[in-house]
Parts: sequence; structure tokens; C-alpha cells
Amino acid sequence: MSKTLEFYFDFGSPAACLAWTQVPALVRETGATLQMRPFLLGGVFQGTGNQSPMAVPAKGAYVMKDLQRFARRYGVPLQSNPHFPINTLLLMRGAVGLQMREPERLVPYGDAVYRAIWADARNLNDPAEVGAVLAAAGFDPQALLALAADPEVKDRLKTVTQEAVARGVFGAPTFFVGDEMFWGQDRLDFVREALA
Amino acid sequence: MSKTLEFYFDFGSPAACLAWTQVPALVRETGATLQMRPFLLGGVFQGTGNQSPMAVPAKGAYVMKDLQRFARRYGVPLQSNPHFPINTLLLMRGAVGLQMREPERLVPYGDAVYRAIWADARNLNDPAEVGAVLAAAGFDPQALLALAADPEVKDRLKTVTQEAVARGVFGAPTFFVGDEMFWGQDRLDFVREALA
Repeated sequence: MSKTLEFYFDFGSPAACLAWTQVPALVRETGATLQMRPFLLGGVFQGTGNQSPMAVPAKGAYVMKDLQRFARRYGVPLQSNPHFPINTLLLMRGAVGLQMREPERLVPYGDAVYRAIWADARNLNDPAEVGAVLAAAGFDPQALLALAADPEVKDRLKTVTQEAVARGVFGAPTFFVGDEMFWGQDRLDFVREALA
Repeated sequence: MSKTLEFYFDFGSPAACLAWTQVPALVRETGATLQMRPFLLGGVFQGTGNQSPMAVPAKGAYVMKDLQRFARRYGVPLQSNPHFPINTLLLMRGAVGLQMREPERLVPYGDAVYRAIWADARNLNDPAEVGAVLAAAGFDPQALLALAADPEVKDRLKTVTQEAVARGVFGAPTFFVGDEMFWGQDRLDFVREALA
């Protein structure tokens, strides 16, 4: 029987971005069923008392170097974003909305948003930039904005985030295989073992 | 030419304990020269604003599970210590003192202290327990206490800790290969690559 991999991600996390690039092959190779869990990392930080590694200057400086080592290993682009932190509330609502209404478009949407932030260093705090990125990826920015304003979508993002905190999640990316939780793109080897 | 591996450790860190068990083979296999850097993690936290993962309850609960996954992978014992946090000031002074005066005894000392804290869950906040652990490992507790009170030893521990902060260290274990810094026992594969 196929196991289920739950993948909690927020576009503001460069580590979740790296995981996003690796999860498709992992799912393909293990035959797992992927359950995407777009959530709001800021809400998780509020709910747990955790904070971004960037809040400690020495740690922040190191973490991007560390992630770039993994990016080289994976063969994917990654760079610091000078506009960090990005307020991802609308972007994550967009992800949740697509998952609810047009699930087949979630992956192309996530690809476009992650690439814009963590490969192209675009300023997605600027609504005009968000619009340009989404339009270039074949999305209608106005339709996505309307989706992000849908109360069901807003509630769903809140619920997923609160459920994450209740399950012990404190950062991103986080994976579950059954009740087993794994934090970090650097735990994909353990996730793979759990899915085997 | 042999590369040098610098290894910053504090006995209070279970992650550093795991690294301690893996470094000897890594050094042997890569032909690296090992430079032990006993330091005071509490001083690093003060100097950087970083804090123990245990300070965030959800993270603390996860981190020990995560380390136990690695312990199983390595085939070494590891368990939570109910007396955590252990004040390691005297223990680290002992390590520095041995490194300065009887360097060949640093490894057996570290083996005994790490095992007592992270395999046997002994209460090394209790001086009587420390004495018993050290005596069982063939050390004279009174001589070690005198060593830990030596001003040169105390200064050296301070200096190493301050140098670590100045080099960008914010946690334990931390490794350097030349100017390249690696944080965490889970980065030993990158350390290995850097030493190759």
C-alpha cells in the first residue's frame, strides 16, 4: 500500500524551496502519495515561540551558505533574497486556493513563486512584481487575488497552520510519514527511509 | 598535504556528543589533522543571541528524536538527560586543561564525560556524580578540579570561546576546514567532502 508524504511549506523559506525541488523525484521513486500542506510559517513561529534563523545574525549568515551547499549538491539554483523577509500571506492563500479549486495548478504556481523569490531574487513584497511573476507563468493575477480573498481559502490556511502547530511543527519544511515528523530539507534521506 | 579539521564541542550538546563518536573515523579515513576546540556553548549563545533548541518546547521535543535517528544510524547509544541543562563550565575547563597539560588524556576524558551525560543520563550537575564518573574512568577528580581552577586554563577556555564567536560560530558542534564552517553533526558528509 502506498504511504502518504505530507509536505508543509511556505514560500518564504529557502529550505522549503530546496525541498520543493526534491520532493517530486522522491515521490516518484518511493511511490508515495503526496499531500501538499501549504501553511503560514509566521503563524507557526507565533504559535510555538520559534523564530527564523535569520533572527540570529551569525546563524542567518551561515544558513544561506549551508543551503547553497545543498543547492550545488542538488544542481538547482538558489540565492539570497535582498527583500527577505517576504510577507507570504497572500501567496500562501493563493496556494491553498489553487489546491482547493484547481489542484492541478498548484505545482506550476509554486514553481513560479519559489523561482521568483529564491532563484531570481524578485521582490514579492511588491504587488506589481507578484502580478508580473504570476502573469509570466500563465496565471491571471486578478483571479488569484480574488481567490486569496475567499473566506473559505483564508480559513483553510489558518486551519492547516493551527493543525501543524498542534502536531508539533515548528519550522519549514516539515514532513510527516504517518505520525513520524521530519524537519528540514536535509532530512529527505530519513523521509525516504520512512517511505520505503 | 594533510588538511586540518577543527572541532568545537561542549559536553552539554547531544549533537556534539554524536559528532564526538564519528570524528575519529572521519579523521582516520581522510588523513586529516584533528584540532580539538573545547569551548563554552553558553558563552557562544551569550555572544551571538542564539539559544538552545530546547528553549522552544516543540523544537526541543523534536530535536532529541532527530538525534536518536542519527544515533541509530551510527549505531551509538544516546538518550535524553533529565538533568539537562548541565552546567559544563568546570567540565569544559577540565577538557581545556587536559589539552594543555596532558593532551593524550583528552579523548578518554571526553569519552567518559559524554557517555555519562548522553548515554547513561547521569546528573553531572552534581559534583559527587562528576567525581564518581571521573574516578571510574581512571582520573583523579581532585587533580582535575585543581586543573580547572588554573587561571591559564580558565583564560584559554574564554579565549577559544571568544575566538569562536568572532569566527561566526553560533552553536555546537561546529567544524572548520580552513575558512569553511560547518555547523551540526549532520554536516559530517560535507566536512568529509571538504577534507577530501
